[in-house]
Amino acid sequence: MTKPETFAVVGGDLRYAYLAGSLAEDGCKVLAVGFDNTDLPPCVAGCTDATQAIALSDSVIFPMPMTTDGRTVHAPFSRHSIPLEQVYAAVKAEQRVFGGGLSEDVQAAFARRGITVGDYLQREELAVRNAVPTAEGAIQLAMEELPVTLHGARCLIVGYGRIGKVLARMLTGLGAAVTVAARKCADRAWARVQGCCAVSTDDLAQLPSMDVVFNTVPTLLFDRRVLGRLDRRTLLIDLASRPGGIDEGAAAELQLKTIWALSLPGRVAPKTAADIIKSTVWNMCREGVV
Amino acid sequence: MTKPETFAVVGGDLRYAYLAGSLAEDGCKVLAVGFDNTDLPPCVAGCTDATQAIALSDSVIFPMPMTTDGRTVHAPFSRHSIPLEQVYAAVKAEQRVFGGGLSEDVQAAFARRGITVGDYLQREELAVRNAVPTAEGAIQLAMEELPVTLHGARCLIVGYGRIGKVLARMLTGLGAAVTVAARKCADRAWARVQGCCAVSTDDLAQLPSMDVVFNTVPTLLFDRRVLGRLDRRTLLIDLASRPGGIDEGAAAELQLKTIWALSLPGRVAPKTAADIIKSTVWNMCREGVV
Amino acid sequence: MTKPETFAVVGGDLRYAYLAGSLAEDGCKVLAVGFDNTDLPPCVAGCTDATQAIALSDSVIFPMPMTTDGRTVHAPFSRHSIPLEQVYAAVKAEQRVFGGGLSEDVQAAFARRGITVGDYLQREELAVRNAVPTAEGAIQLAMEELPVTLHGARCLIVGYGRIGKVLARMLTGLGAAVTVAARKCADRAWARVQGCCAVSTDDLAQLPSMDVVFNTVPTLLFDRRVLGRLDRRTLLIDLASRPGGIDEGAAAELQLKTIWALSLPGRVAPKTAADIIKSTVWNMCREGVV
Amino acid sequence: MTKPETFAVVGGDLRYAYLAGSLAEDGCKVLAVGFDNTDLPPCVAGCTDATQAIALSDSVIFPMPMTTDGRTVHAPFSRHSIPLEQVYAAVKAEQRVFGGGLSEDVQAAFARRGITVGDYLQREELAVRNAVPTAEGAIQLAMEELPVTLHGARCLIVGYGRIGKVLARMLTGLGAAVTVAARKCADRAWARVQGCCAVSTDDLAQLPSMDVVFNTVPTLLFDRRVLGRLDRRTLLIDLASRPGGIDEGAAAELQLKTIWALSLPGRVAPKTAADIIKSTVWNMCREGVV
Repeated sequence: MTKPETFAVVGGDLRYAYLAGSLAEDGCKVLAVGFDNTDLPPCVAGCTDATQAIALSDSVIFPMPMTTDGRTVHAPFSRHSIPLEQVYAAVKAEQRVFGGGLSEDVQAAFARRGITVGDYLQREELAVRNAVPTAEGAIQLAMEELPVTLHGARCLIVGYGRIGKVLARMLTGLGAAVTVAARKCADRAWARVQGCCAVSTDDLAQLPSMDVVFNTVPTLLFDRRVLGRLDRRTLLIDLASRPGGIDEGAAAELQLKTIWALSLPGRVAPKTAADIIKSTVWNMCREGVV
Repeated sequence: MTKPETFAVVGGDLRYAYLAGSLAEDGCKVLAVGFDNTDLPPCVAGCTDATQAIALSDSVIFPMPMTTDGRTVHAPFSRHSIPLEQVYAAVKAEQRVFGGGLSEDVQAAFARRGITVGDYLQREELAVRNAVPTAEGAIQLAMEELPVTLHGARCLIVGYGRIGKVLARMLTGLGAAVTVAARKCADRAWARVQGCCAVSTDDLAQLPSMDVVFNTVPTLLFDRRVLGRLDRRTLLIDLASRPGGIDEGAAAELQLKTIWALSLPGRVAPKTAADIIKSTVWNMCREGVV
Repeated sequence: MTKPETFAVVGGDLRYAYLAGSLAEDGCKVLAVGFDNTDLPPCVAGCTDATQAIALSDSVIFPMPMTTDGRTVHAPFSRHSIPLEQVYAAVKAEQRVFGGGLSEDVQAAFARRGITVGDYLQREELAVRNAVPTAEGAIQLAMEELPVTLHGARCLIVGYGRIGKVLARMLTGLGAAVTVAARKCADRAWARVQGCCAVSTDDLAQLPSMDVVFNTVPTLLFDRRVLGRLDRRTLLIDLASRPGGIDEGAAAELQLKTIWALSLPGRVAPKTAADIIKSTVWNMCREGVV
Repeated sequence: MTKPETFAVVGGDLRYAYLAGSLAEDGCKVLAVGFDNTDLPPCVAGCTDATQAIALSDSVIFPMPMTTDGRTVHAPFSRHSIPLEQVYAAVKAEQRVFGGGLSEDVQAAFARRGITVGDYLQREELAVRNAVPTAEGAIQLAMEELPVTLHGARCLIVGYGRIGKVLARMLTGLGAAVTVAARKCADRAWARVQGCCAVSTDDLAQLPSMDVVFNTVPTLLFDRRVLGRLDRRTLLIDLASRPGGIDEGAAAELQLKTIWALSLPGRVAPKTAADIIKSTVWNMCREGVV
């Protein structure tokens, strides 16, 4: 492979401004569309005309989410809207096109024009690496809310997938006392190998007091019955995507403080999130999948 | 030793409200003076008359700082002032009296009445344990300010005393790349043993780019010359007591973001800070120093 | 489930003597057959007649490997042989029967008598937990052979499965500089998240000098070409099952020290290995799979 | 400072052969005396005449110990003896002379000839860094002797000086459950901050069962009474210099396995030990203390 030389970055939140800057630091020429309302890093050319920017580039990066209204590219830092139809028409089959978390509609629209879009959100290395800013964001929230240090705090992590694993490691590194609740026997064995206590998710109602619970499982494990057993001072942080794993109504009635923390990477560490997208895009180029 | 049975907690910030609650949870009777403007934990009796509260107690705990105006006990949660003269007169020689960071004036005033006050701020175990909330508070600040995760961030710690050591360990536990700057050869050897890079404080001007600098040394190491060599995106967090180690005027001119972070334990983790004071007080009782 | 009350432990190496003792410490009655040539822990009844021991038990545990000659139970601590036919005939359908790594022949022989044997070697939690004594055994070998400390040593781990992950964590915990070689992008992302460097297995010939290489991949990655690029002082430890991942002939010609380290759990930590088998057997009972 | 250009390495064990090689790799000219009975690294010139080697060098390094018989330089790899009188007479005042753990006699003999000898064993950074191979050697011994993995093992470390601190960190890194026994309150606070349990050395007789005890305190803490309370399967490793901290007679009677482990750095990691001596010598040159 030869690295793409000119990139159009079309829309996106703060991460994509950092992404444009980071690509420029790697020596690429970068045209950024949809950032007229914020500062762009030096070496990045701001551009208001998406059609022109795409025409001048050999690769195009669209944000995640690509669109929130189904009609325009998500571009919160732009005063002008960028219609989806405009970018569909501008992209050419010989270009590399990247997007994140593309809906079937968007994919179909590109496909009708003979364009294959590489979805970086489907890549496992992005998911693995995004677990880091997610876990760190959760730790920051816990630090901000708790009257105790995480060092020595009793922390429960529910679920031992990517985020659970990284969170367990970081909390252990800070000196917390970490318990992992997992459904599978082998996951509990892993958690113990990594220095945590482990319990079955069936036993959530029998646990001793915790200072903070981090939920990563998108299943309603924290129903009224389980919530009712918690110490009222327990902080609940739900990292699972909608509908989440905590009955928020019941939690509110029981006066349990609950934080529903989504999209942490872009919020707490946009530059790191941008680097993760960038290196995933490089991997996709190297593997020739786009 | 027998544990004291009744405590008067006279004045202090949020830590002392937690301290009162924690002593009560240990089974002590606790009278708290100076918290009429906040909620006290259950089992703690709020009291407005310091003389009476002291008279009913066998041990008295004063806050740190004891006073900020030289005339009254520091009691930010009280609508009433508690004159120092009142508490001097109330305390008796057969009581155990504890205070934190007592000035010579205060010590002399107690001494004139035949009272020895045990200063918990002089105890090394308190200083060691306070390094934990201080380091965690510094980490929280860095997480809040940086656009990158601490995982993978290039962190410089200046000084390898208590706070430097705990900070190095926690940052390493989060996956940061930690460099320690220390004056002494043996300290640098320790830092390397603990998995950090180490440089001499003489070489601060020759360092590669850092994402964040944590200063713990109360000497002006970051003068205009050293600051001028830093990447403008570097975040500076000064943990050293006044006058601190960073020329803030020069930092401002150079547009370097600087946070001067003092008294972190009480601010970020008042309950942990209270537990540290409590267990130090227990140690002093056990050793019979008061 | 109710826990089995009487166990027959029939044959096996030192692990199975410890297993018998550990079951007895848990309050079970234990009959051990095939240990007449060694000391058994207190509370374990040694027994020379397998038929009788099995008849008196409600559960029977056979060793891994079950047999090395295809005719008798593997029983290195016994002066008497225990014919397979004898144990096939003795076991009854209402008993719980456990074995490790059973061949098709052995399974078929049991099945003909209507016996289902639970194979603890097939359980993932056993594989996960066995990675711990395997990794620790590999570390012990490296410590014994290397003229340098692992602290600060440049270690290459090839493969990032169970053993690779545990080894990476332990070596990092000792202060080694760990590089992981993995085929998959996502595995390399994980290794980096865990604080290691990561390279593709395609790039083994381009690596800088290493003090020690731990191979866990049972594919010939270390052929003459790759071996020829290594520093002659590099120690090679092959943890992959036969045929292993290192061309031993070429390594010998190149005067590279190679250790082929198999079956480490039973050799370096028989008591831990026994505990792992025991808790796996308990899990199988609880889940009702036997 | 300018680095010395020619070194004579006179006598010593395997560490000093490595030291000679390591200095040569740094670009120095090295003459090694007293290694006629072993292989020297390439680029090191073996030499049988100490007088001549010293005359040709601008710096001279003597081993630790300098002498074991009071008459000749300690040179276990030499068939010829090197009389102390010969080296005293050969050294000149303008040379840099280094030795390790010099007795008063040896110092006086040099002083009479106007020679100041820099004692690298007195340097704190050497003591700090030597704690690493000592701790790793102790861990290797424990791995070799214990039937369990250190991961999950209950380990007691007595004393929290340099070796105790490094040992605690490494054992924690391997996943052991570490308890530290220390006399001072502040040391126990440190141990807890570092993730260990901590007890007073006064309470050694009240401890729960341990798999292994590492003693680092050269005071008889493990007398018959304390030893009598230990589980008979406990492994004792004494790292304290003579007379050590364990009553070996009583331990033998009680059938407690005891290993008295001295001089570990030179035995388990001679190359690392040599690097530590070398960088200490460089520090002494840079600081101009010799």
